[in-house]
Amino acid sequence: MGETRLTKEDIEDLAIGAAVLGTGGGGDPYIGKLMAIQVLDKGKEITLVDPNDIPDDAFIMTSAFMGTPITIIEKLPSGLEAVKALESLENYFGRRADYITPVEAGGLNSTIPLYVAGMTGKPVLDGDGMGRAFPELQMVTFHLYGVKATPMSLADEKGNSVILDTIDNFWAEKIARVVTIRMGGWASIALYSMNGKKYKEAVIPHTISKGIEIGRAIRDAKKHGKNPLDALLDVTRGFKLFEGKVVDVSRWIVAGFAKGEVTIEGFDDFKGKTMKIMFQNENLVAIVDGEVVASVPDLIVVLDLETAEPITTERHRYGYRVAVVGIPCDAKWRTPEALEVVGPKYFGYDIEYVPIEERVKALGLG
Amino acid sequence: MGETRLTKEDIEDLAIGAAVLGTGGGGDPYIGKLMAIQVLDKGKEITLVDPNDIPDDAFIMTSAFMGTPITIIEKLPSGLEAVKALESLENYFGRRADYITPVEAGGLNSTIPLYVAGMTGKPVLDGDGMGRAFPELQMVTFHLYGVKATPMSLADEKGNSVILDTIDNFWAEKIARVVTIRMGGWASIALYSMNGKKYKEAVIPHTISKGIEIGRAIRDAKKHGKNPLDALLDVTRGFKLFEGKVVDVSRWIVAGFAKGEVTIEGFDDFKGKTMKIMFQNENLVAIVDGEVVASVPDLIVVLDLETAEPITTERHRYGYRVAVVGIPCDAKWRTPEALEVVGPKYFGYDIEYVPIEERVKALGLG
Repeated sequence: MGETRLTKEDIEDLAIGAAVLGTGGGGDPYIGKLMAIQVLDKGKEITLVDPNDIPDDAFIMTSAFMGTPITIIEKLPSGLEAVKALESLENYFGRRADYITPVEAGGLNSTIPLYVAGMTGKPVLDGDGMGRAFPELQMVTFHLYGVKATPMSLADEKGNSVILDTIDNFWAEKIARVVTIRMGGWASIALYSMNGKKYKEAVIPHTISKGIEIGRAIRDAKKHGKNPLDALLDVTRGFKLFEGKVVDVSRWIVAGFAKGEVTIEGFDDFKGKTMKIMFQNENLVAIVDGEVVASVPDLIVVLDLETAEPITTERHRYGYRVAVVGIPCDAKWRTPEALEVVGPKYFGYDIEYVPIEERVKALGLG
Repeated sequence: MGETRLTKEDIEDLAIGAAVLGTGGGGDPYIGKLMAIQVLDKGKEITLVDPNDIPDDAFIMTSAFMGTPITIIEKLPSGLEAVKALESLENYFGRRADYITPVEAGGLNSTIPLYVAGMTGKPVLDGDGMGRAFPELQMVTFHLYGVKATPMSLADEKGNSVILDTIDNFWAEKIARVVTIRMGGWASIALYSMNGKKYKEAVIPHTISKGIEIGRAIRDAKKHGKNPLDALLDVTRGFKLFEGKVVDVSRWIVAGFAKGEVTIEGFDDFKGKTMKIMFQNENLVAIVDGEVVASVPDLIVVLDLETAEPITTERHRYGYRVAVVGIPCDAKWRTPEALEVVGPKYFGYDIEYVPIEERVKALGLG
């Protein structure tokens, strides 16, 4: 509620929580964490504001990175391009943003807006358009509620910038995607501008504080010698779907997306079973011996078995001992209209979406 | 000199002349011709203005199509996107253009600006940045004289638009190219905005009236039973390089460009010889039996042997009986700096540029 000044500890916790909500994708929050901490080190402040407290006529812009997560590791951002993307969109509108909002609570895009907000002296809103991470621009509750992604800006670290104005959010995705590829794999973006009234209707609220809460729960559990995985399941209302060892990882980059598949051989309670997880930036579908155990839009999270630290899809390695956790997505994603945008069929899987609570009950995993 | 109101006959003549100056590329002027005539049919005027007559502080914008010529045939423009590209750039600048200039005297881009000028009630300048056609954005005298291509707008027929602001004109080319591909192969663009003083310094003047003059010379020759090819050589100060029959055409589309090669078997004076012409949208290099006879930036034009009508690279067919003509390029293209931008080496050919006048003299073709 109200306003909170974020501390370094909050940002450290958020980086862990955002990696969980990143469901394997969204880019490693580590880089965004360093950027946000850098803001505090410069003596600037990052103020988190409850969406319920903003005026209806506030002007809100969404700040994010777009691109293939692995290229963000290869070509590090300076942060200037993130501020430039915001400012060039403000210039295009001829109006300054009152608040910055994250578009994703998961991954790098949870912390990038904190950096942009801190550097530009604007408050950042405690909410996002996903409650997790998703790979495409239109996979956001703002889209479901009729907000246009464009006018949208893209900026790269070299100083190039682009403004898009498209007929719909799918065209924004298509054109922005090729621009990010040409810019070197990723770009800073500003998009989904809207007023406070629309934002309160369309946002998934309190997801940044939720990310901080998840990170803190894991940290506290470790500090007190408790099982961090249990703490994670507790704070997220998640389900343990699998435990095992990574035995195979395939990756390919298609049209600017990091796609792939990871195979995990079970042990302990899951001995003799094999889980396959298919991903496109984020984990999309988890299948155990031919049976779907979880799918988008529910969250599938792969964690280090000992530390409960999330493993992003670009970091999977043979031999990792992991736990796989499923977490229910926000209710806004469970309508038929929302499932058309983010359900397994959109991603090319001939699978009906079944809420994870029902799947685990049926499978006796709950 | 001064101002000229263009007639339908002028536009018909320009379409022929622009196809000559298009040097095989630039898109078929036929579509642009129909668009420009449509303007006159609506009762609007197209006023051609001598660059020498404009004030130094006039604000000038360049209007063009960008993309693979063959896709313009496949997906016809409505014209609205051309006006939209101009207007969205004007909106970005917050200033209306006083004059429209063509960027290419060759091909489709000679007549598109006439359409845009007529529809928006602005005069069009009698000059361009090439004196011919070239395949890439930075291959323009405006670039040589330090004018920035960006801010640049792109618009498609669906209603999508994009504004670029890049660190240099090569990045404008790179990003605009992938956007045009994503938009379906081509886009309407507005770019290279400058004031009257810079324009007068950077332009190749009187190329639109030159295009009209070429078309008229061909038409007049036919009307009076004279050889249209001789008339063409006369008005362009060109050289006949070859006569023969097209025996092979290869085409491939690479990264948004129509590349290829045409092989011509000589007859009459050229019997027993074979010419190969390599093209990338435009004809780049002509080689007879291993010897270079002409290269960019000089113009290489393939014409129907009987009618002297130019044949664009996308229309080459087995069996066509053709004459190949070489025309000297503007002196602005013959400096070492200019040859770095448009010389044969830029296009990947290990060939020194030699002015066509010298080549034909050495070969005894003059």
